[in-house]
Amino acid sequence: MKQRLSTEEYAAGVAAGDRIILAKAISLAESSLPEDQEQALALISKLTPSKNSIRIGITGVPGVGKSTFIEAFGKYITSLNKKLAVLTIDPSSQVTKGSILGDKTRMDELSKNPLAFIRPTASGNTLGGTGSKTRESILLCEAAGYDVILVETVGVGQSETSVKNLVDFFLLLMLAGAGDELQGIKKGIMEMADTILITKADGDNLKRAREAQADYQHALNLFSDNQSGWKPNVLTCSALNGTGIREVWHTIELFRDQLTQNGYLDVQRNAQRITAFHESFEHLLKNELSKFPGLREKAEALEEQVAKQGLPPHRAAAKLITLYREAVKKS
Amino acid sequence: MKQRLSTEEYAAGVAAGDRIILAKAISLAESSLPEDQEQALALISKLTPSKNSIRIGITGVPGVGKSTFIEAFGKYITSLNKKLAVLTIDPSSQVTKGSILGDKTRMDELSKNPLAFIRPTASGNTLGGTGSKTRESILLCEAAGYDVILVETVGVGQSETSVKNLVDFFLLLMLAGAGDELQGIKKGIMEMADTILITKADGDNLKRAREAQADYQHALNLFSDNQSGWKPNVLTCSALNGTGIREVWHTIELFRDQLTQNGYLDVQRNAQRITAFHESFEHLLKNELSKFPGLREKAEALEEQVAKQGLPPHRAAAKLITLYREAVKKS
Repeated sequence: MKQRLSTEEYAAGVAAGDRIILAKAISLAESSLPEDQEQALALISKLTPSKNSIRIGITGVPGVGKSTFIEAFGKYITSLNKKLAVLTIDPSSQVTKGSILGDKTRMDELSKNPLAFIRPTASGNTLGGTGSKTRESILLCEAAGYDVILVETVGVGQSETSVKNLVDFFLLLMLAGAGDELQGIKKGIMEMADTILITKADGDNLKRAREAQADYQHALNLFSDNQSGWKPNVLTCSALNGTGIREVWHTIELFRDQLTQNGYLDVQRNAQRITAFHESFEHLLKNELSKFPGLREKAEALEEQVAKQGLPPHRAAAKLITLYREAVKKS
Repeated sequence: MKQRLSTEEYAAGVAAGDRIILAKAISLAESSLPEDQEQALALISKLTPSKNSIRIGITGVPGVGKSTFIEAFGKYITSLNKKLAVLTIDPSSQVTKGSILGDKTRMDELSKNPLAFIRPTASGNTLGGTGSKTRESILLCEAAGYDVILVETVGVGQSETSVKNLVDFFLLLMLAGAGDELQGIKKGIMEMADTILITKADGDNLKRAREAQADYQHALNLFSDNQSGWKPNVLTCSALNGTGIREVWHTIELFRDQLTQNGYLDVQRNAQRITAFHESFEHLLKNELSKFPGLREKAEALEEQVAKQGLPPHRAAAKLITLYREAVKKS
């Protein structure tokens, strides 16, 4: 039978950089059991937060070469003797169960590197859920001494917005010449990017990559300035030739220096914490209906009346609030 | 002093197609005063819902020629002896106060047409708010005998999603050759379109418009099929030459026939009502904090602790739920 670690054992293990205990601690934070959640929160408040970490969000559609890039980038980062954690969020993982396993075996070399820690994460249910669990995983990795935290998402849409709220720096990977339509990249995503990186800039593709670089740079210049003062740039890379990888890291270092100096890195992290508070509260509020017996059924009955019997949606909503308040009073 | 109309007076006036009373009824529905809201709901449940109306959402970035198109389209619609209502939602109107007035004078000819009713609407605060108020305005216009309801938004982003949930048919206006980046059209918006209409297809621009038509049709074909069975198409028009306008109406009629036959028009409207119920409920839930004295201040104190004193966002959220429940119990 699996023995439960005490919060102190978790804290000591994580602080010592024990990978197995770190992995277990992340599982604890990801668990939906109330006692696990409670212990995870207790654990996190015990840990010493890292001051020097950098959190990087990476996204791009399937096929853009994310894992190949992360493999090359990770090799470079660890060659600088930095510890790298890669957290992969796969919102589709509930549907295509296989992809989690796929992720694990994807970054073959990096996964064997003692300075790297790779953790695939099923995103579970809601975005709020995703975000909040990943937030805890980041804190755990930082407490375990990881300097660079990569949060990778599959670029299918919604998840990017929540990831943007978890990271300091947002890197968008794009293919040259595929066209925005085909890449399924929403404009809102492009606006979130601190750097756009055009992958596979090699061989026959090099010229197109350079053209795309100019195009995207032009498009980025159209967006209004970031509050942080950072001017997003466009880089190219080739994992095949090993070119452009160190330039990405160089850009991220520049970004960190600039935003540390003007204080925006802290401003942003504080704002992210407040957003997480609001999201978590809204998430809990939405779940309130399930907390009181019979309330969910009453909501469904109202739904039926709205759809079939012409009850105005507004009025049904007001009625449901009243029912909810009554249930709270009785509890 | 302004005399308040009774609900019966409103209902009679709207049913008789009295434009002044219709305008007043819409203002009533838009009002945030609880007694106005109550009367608006009472009014709407008194009215006979129209069975044959068609609700059309129109969007496109500033400069695409929305008002010119609506002017030409409205002229055509009214020439068929149909009554047309145009509801304009301007999410930016709170910032650029002038634009509402601009809207009023924009559709010069149409605004003088006795078969047309033009109503600019400040979107107010939230999207939920927007949606729900516009929903009531649509019902009021339909009860006043308007056959075609156009809901126009400025294509700046979020509002389109809420409009999609209010209408039967979604028309996206695009310029040829401007490039998606420049048009700021999100991919999600394109996927929502039942028809993409390329404007200003005249003179030197005609060739580009035809090319764009083929491009967009190609892109639309990449999206998965609509549940409704409708295949989105791409049309061109020129308000200058008066070409392509009747083809838009013809498409909308085809759409209505097809979706009436397969029952999807009703399915969609029922689903929209349920979504409105959920949105309205969430909106009310979010406002619950303001309903109990001191709760908002406690939430702000928690926010401060989250930002500055390392209180985990999750824990703060759980605490706030507890405080809220206690306030309900005491009330």
